[in-house]
Amino acid sequence: MELMIWMPIVMAILGLIYMWIKQSWVMKQDAGDGKMKEISDYIYEGALAFLSAEYKLLAIFVFVVSLALAAVSFIVPTTHILIVVAFIFGAIFSAFAGNIGMKIATKTNVRTTQAARTSLPNALKISFGGGTVMGLGVAGLAVLGLTAFFIFFFYFFMDSTWTNTMDMTVVLETLAGFSLGAESIALFARVGGGIYTKAADVGADLVGKVEAGIPEDDPRNPATIADNVGDNVGDVAGMGADLFGSYVATVLAAMVLGNYVIKDMGGAITDNFGGIGPILLPMAIAGAGIIISIIGTMLVKINSNDAKEAQVMGALNKGNWTSIVLVGLSCYGLVTWMLPETMQMEFFGEGLQEISSMRVFAATLVGLVVGAVISSVTEYYTGLGKSPILKIVQQSSTGAGTNIIAGLATGMISTFPSVLLFAGAIWASYAFAGFYGVALAASAMMATTAMQLAIDAFGPISDNAGGIAEMSEQEPIVRERTDILDSVGNTTAATGKGFAIASAALTSLALFAAYVTFTGIDGINIFKAPVLAMLFVGGMVPVVFSALAMNAVGKAAMEMVQEVRRQFRDIPGIMEGTGKPEYDKCVAISTQASLKEMMLPGLLTIGFPLIIAFAPLAFGMDKLAIAEMLGGYMAGVTVSGVLWAIFQNNAGGAWDNAKKSFEAGVEINGEMTYKGSDAHKAAVTGDTVGDPFKDTSGPSMNILIKLTCLIGLVIAPILGGHSEEGANLNEIKSEVNVEVTATNNNDLIAATIITTKTVNGETVTETETFNGTIEEIEAKAEKSGKIVSMDVNKNKETKTKEVKIIINDKD
Amino acid sequence: MELMIWMPIVMAILGLIYMWIKQSWVMKQDAGDGKMKEISDYIYEGALAFLSAEYKLLAIFVFVVSLALAAVSFIVPTTHILIVVAFIFGAIFSAFAGNIGMKIATKTNVRTTQAARTSLPNALKISFGGGTVMGLGVAGLAVLGLTAFFIFFFYFFMDSTWTNTMDMTVVLETLAGFSLGAESIALFARVGGGIYTKAADVGADLVGKVEAGIPEDDPRNPATIADNVGDNVGDVAGMGADLFGSYVATVLAAMVLGNYVIKDMGGAITDNFGGIGPILLPMAIAGAGIIISIIGTMLVKINSNDAKEAQVMGALNKGNWTSIVLVGLSCYGLVTWMLPETMQMEFFGEGLQEISSMRVFAATLVGLVVGAVISSVTEYYTGLGKSPILKIVQQSSTGAGTNIIAGLATGMISTFPSVLLFAGAIWASYAFAGFYGVALAASAMMATTAMQLAIDAFGPISDNAGGIAEMSEQEPIVRERTDILDSVGNTTAATGKGFAIASAALTSLALFAAYVTFTGIDGINIFKAPVLAMLFVGGMVPVVFSALAMNAVGKAAMEMVQEVRRQFRDIPGIMEGTGKPEYDKCVAISTQASLKEMMLPGLLTIGFPLIIAFAPLAFGMDKLAIAEMLGGYMAGVTVSGVLWAIFQNNAGGAWDNAKKSFEAGVEINGEMTYKGSDAHKAAVTGDTVGDPFKDTSGPSMNILIKLTCLIGLVIAPILGGHSEEGANLNEIKSEVNVEVTATNNNDLIAATIITTKTVNGETVTETETFNGTIEEIEAKAEKSGKIVSMDVNKNKETKTKEVKIIINDKD
Repeated sequence: MELMIWMPIVMAILGLIYMWIKQSWVMKQDAGDGKMKEISDYIYEGALAFLSAEYKLLAIFVFVVSLALAAVSFIVPTTHILIVVAFIFGAIFSAFAGNIGMKIATKTNVRTTQAARTSLPNALKISFGGGTVMGLGVAGLAVLGLTAFFIFFFYFFMDSTWTNTMDMTVVLETLAGFSLGAESIALFARVGGGIYTKAADVGADLVGKVEAGIPEDDPRNPATIADNVGDNVGDVAGMGADLFGSYVATVLAAMVLGNYVIKDMGGAITDNFGGIGPILLPMAIAGAGIIISIIGTMLVKINSNDAKEAQVMGALNKGNWTSIVLVGLSCYGLVTWMLPETMQMEFFGEGLQEISSMRVFAATLVGLVVGAVISSVTEYYTGLGKSPILKIVQQSSTGAGTNIIAGLATGMISTFPSVLLFAGAIWASYAFAGFYGVALAASAMMATTAMQLAIDAFGPISDNAGGIAEMSEQEPIVRERTDILDSVGNTTAATGKGFAIASAALTSLALFAAYVTFTGIDGINIFKAPVLAMLFVGGMVPVVFSALAMNAVGKAAMEMVQEVRRQFRDIPGIMEGTGKPEYDKCVAISTQASLKEMMLPGLLTIGFPLIIAFAPLAFGMDKLAIAEMLGGYMAGVTVSGVLWAIFQNNAGGAWDNAKKSFEAGVEINGEMTYKGSDAHKAAVTGDTVGDPFKDTSGPSMNILIKLTCLIGLVIAPILGGHSEEGANLNEIKSEVNVEVTATNNNDLIAATIITTKTVNGETVTETETFNGTIEEIEAKAEKSGKIVSMDVNKNKETKTKEVKIIINDKD
Repeated sequence: MELMIWMPIVMAILGLIYMWIKQSWVMKQDAGDGKMKEISDYIYEGALAFLSAEYKLLAIFVFVVSLALAAVSFIVPTTHILIVVAFIFGAIFSAFAGNIGMKIATKTNVRTTQAARTSLPNALKISFGGGTVMGLGVAGLAVLGLTAFFIFFFYFFMDSTWTNTMDMTVVLETLAGFSLGAESIALFARVGGGIYTKAADVGADLVGKVEAGIPEDDPRNPATIADNVGDNVGDVAGMGADLFGSYVATVLAAMVLGNYVIKDMGGAITDNFGGIGPILLPMAIAGAGIIISIIGTMLVKINSNDAKEAQVMGALNKGNWTSIVLVGLSCYGLVTWMLPETMQMEFFGEGLQEISSMRVFAATLVGLVVGAVISSVTEYYTGLGKSPILKIVQQSSTGAGTNIIAGLATGMISTFPSVLLFAGAIWASYAFAGFYGVALAASAMMATTAMQLAIDAFGPISDNAGGIAEMSEQEPIVRERTDILDSVGNTTAATGKGFAIASAALTSLALFAAYVTFTGIDGINIFKAPVLAMLFVGGMVPVVFSALAMNAVGKAAMEMVQEVRRQFRDIPGIMEGTGKPEYDKCVAISTQASLKEMMLPGLLTIGFPLIIAFAPLAFGMDKLAIAEMLGGYMAGVTVSGVLWAIFQNNAGGAWDNAKKSFEAGVEINGEMTYKGSDAHKAAVTGDTVGDPFKDTSGPSMNILIKLTCLIGLVIAPILGGHSEEGANLNEIKSEVNVEVTATNNNDLIAATIITTKTVNGETVTETETFNGTIEEIEAKAEKSGKIVSMDVNKNKETKTKEVKIIINDKD
């Protein structure tokens, strides 16, 4: 086996070692005194309580799905029972990454507060250090798990030596189990977490702020710990699981498409990487990304204790941009080193084309550009002081109604540049290097995942640090410092969401492409009515999913409200600070409610593709027709899901910052307006609507579209034309057919060799065209090995052509 | 020429005569006394002012588009200059229909008020009589115009005798101009009207109700006339133009697909209708629908002066259901009479299939079911007293934020049954009779348009009648009676919107199918990256369009607010009722603002498909590839547009009725809650958001999706493979190719004859498969005329097959 296959795993282990060092350093920092420590412990325990409840539910879920996958592996010959093992490990790795993140985040918050008592640079170093641990944990475990399983399956199925693309397909199909496991955890973490965080937030606010009139983060409010736990559950664990899933799925999809590049090149290539360079490349890029992210995180620091938001933001940007540029450079190196100088790739309807490795590199640059630009777009539509936010602020003066309309409109309009960007990226990366290019664009973008997550996780840590400062009644300077970090964290949270959407969109496209190639259908034709119908159904699912998620928040929040009201009523002295609130009860309610309420949307996500695949199968419908319908469904979910993700995230972000604008005061109709004004109250209403948008239903879209495409990929072998069973059932047979096309010139003709599989009347076609004189074509045709001999004679008198072909019938 | 071709035109004229009689009858009714008449005259003049301003703008628009179409007709040989004439007449007919509707509506309102002073049955008779005039005007002119132009073009291009499908394609392409003209007016009427009505409404409420504290419809409010004009502009003229456009486009699309049925049957059929039965059928169904609608409207009456909403609703339902059943019966008669007993239809990927006329009839039933069920679905999600509304009412108790979330969620969830219904309808009607079945399903549904519009227009007329009763200070009993009509009108308005969405969705699908057949592409494959990119872009456009429309309402309303404030300030004695408000100024502002603000969304609608078609054309991209991209765009717009239409209409309707629930009082947490409570205020905020949703952006979606697909259809010849110019440029050549497929059985083989056009490397294919022994196939192949002889010999030793074919090269 070539050494290069071990490279990503080494990088991943290096990343995990650095993570461990960083973690130890953070843990060694001063965790503060009595009250601070007490509150921090509550949050830590609350987070653990959520995790352990989640894990119990997960264990049941993983068990059920494992049984289903085992059943599939017995029915479909090309699906191996090892997919169950991969699935379970995918779930465990993702859960473990979330665990690391939650633990470090809940330990880092109080240390950040403590550091903020003396030094802002130190507070940043600690909070960002916590984020770094989270980022490297996710990225390191993702690459480690995926690479290790690939190496194992490559050994198990192929004895670590290239045989043919069909065997590699089995390897990658089994590997898809790992990705499915990871994404399943993301469903629980992102959707369940999203419901948790908003239920706790709304519940705490409704009774605490509104009914009892006590400030946010007041320790007398029984739901305040649940609220702080929620920040970690939703923004840390949820985001981590989301990106873990994207990371793994993207690399997997790129590997699948890499295998098809080898197929297009004749089924085998010779390179210095055991003939699997195109398959190893995405893993290598991911591995390099880990080391680059470490370098990037090292650059994030400030020196002055009087630094403001701009300096902190600048430090983060420095690290971020450096890592993006370094990934670009490493892509150049890896692509030119690992890929053949020119490759043949099949372009749908255009036949085989020669693609240079430089064009693949160009495709990776497209991905990096998308990652960078989408953050700016998000920042423009949701950033404080930006024109869309100022407009919402102005519209708040005429009441909540106009504020809501303005926020909705902002979110809706923000789909314009975002979708044009995605559409351009799809087009460009495909034009450069086919769907392999699309998948590698996604891989390159995802290579900075560790850095992105570090920036992202730093936000909720700082938010928590501020909460602890408030609850433990620190001096105002402490809160001021944590507020600077928190404010920057809010911006990075918004741009991080943009990155997560972009990653989900590109990942889904790559999975979609992998699905089509897996099933062997020759495209997804929406002019077929059943496919069009499924496109409609797919488009509807994200809308209904969002509604269910929003309603879930409402229901869970109501349970929380009842509990907080009960405690205020039943616990003596709670308002005077002498009675102790039962924080754990609120945590338990949020936990149970969120996990219960995520069932229905989860069922929708998993159930629909299964029904579309298996219901018609039960009625004996043609498998490839079903595969095409399922593809239409996947496209509908992806297009609609991306739109609703952008709409909801940006509308929510915009409302949030419109509300925050009043804290510093805003000018409305020439008058300065502040907190407590009617306009501010209208803005608060907008934020109430925006909260589930941006923290629950919006981010859930990422999981919905990825999981839908992954489920499609996993059941692809059942529907696909390449499975052995399918071959027996459907009498697949490779056939060689000759199509003779005459032009006006009598001497020159064009001959097209079409290799056709016929499956229940549907034809899957590969085309190769020769142009030239009859003699030239005959020579080429014979050389191709498919045709033994061919003879074309024109008879001008009778106006007929006689074509005599001898076809190789060995296939 | 066969007599049957004149049948629809006769029906249309009968309908228009009945309309004229009904109109005269309504006009003869007592128009009341001084104050009532005065107010009614203001509304009438305001409506005329809007119309005349709209017509000016329209004239410019029609002129510009005519020039563009003329240019197209010079460039593309198969597009005839007569398309310009058809376009202009389509615009004029639609505008004229709108004019009739607006005039009768603004004349009927005061007569309804006057009748309500003595008799509820009479008030219903008059208000519904006005609606009937509107309905028959729209349906009658639509059928008259379309049929007359068809007869003329059929005479002009084909001398009224069947020649071949290509000539008929030219006829229908030219006829598409009429449809484009009609839909362009709909853009102005629906989008402009939608902005007008809400700008006036919001402007009147914000200053009148909120700032000055005077009730709705108070004559002291300068914007009150504009508000009442708005009801007519949006709900009467806008809805009328919308359905006029759907009606024409549906019938046209069904005719196009009927032509392709003839093509699939060998290019000519023999029947008693000059060989164009499948093309005449949709027009005949439309013609029959007019007479049936007249019968239906005659059934709408009540007898008791003490009738309540239920009786009025019952009378409307009786008429509606009777007309639906009668359309079903007439479809049975017409389909079995006009179509061949069995037809051959090409099913994509499945080849030619035998379709009986009974299956076509089944497809029409699918359309009727969709029309009926979608109304019930809409009624469920938006109706007073229904569970979704009660939930929103409950959520109002915790403030505007939760009310908004509940309303949004209701609209979103309502996409679930609606989309499943549409998807099922697409699937079923296609399974019954291909895309011809889909188009006929739409035609059957639209056959009751006159009845639907009568029911629909009756709502705003009654609303206006109530307004006049209020403004002219009638006795309470008058308002009570008009309120009964108004309340029923609110329900029919919601279900009417459902019908309009369903009609737009089915129309777009039919147009989409016609587009694909027009361009000659063999489907729209979203696995091609550029097509997928355009699917994304198409999905985004309805979202951005909605945002622009909502923002337009906000801007126009602000101008209105300024003007009303100015009048309150500048006109002495206005609040005491001694100074006279300048109603016309408010009308002018609403008119100008609405027409100005609809430019940008209008440009988006028209501009995007043109850019997608012509920008790549300028860069020399392959025409069929562009056609496929444009098809992807159309699909994206349709899927996303239908979703957003349902979402916005139903959310808006739900908020509206949640607010109205407080008028009779609702039970929240065990307490009866009424108008003026905090919960009611929250519900009012929800209604503010819902207003532009349900009256502006939501209904505009219908126009967006239909116009997008129509523009596609009109530019199809430029991109299409069937134009003569295309033939010269691209060296199209019909070729016969033989594909030999061997099964495991050595004696049986399958031969597929593929007729292929090659256009710039893309192949358009028709497939015919023979199964049998070699001898049988040879016999069949020779009989087909395409193959002179064919010889297949298997050599088992060398494992080769020798295929010798003599191909007819005459094509």
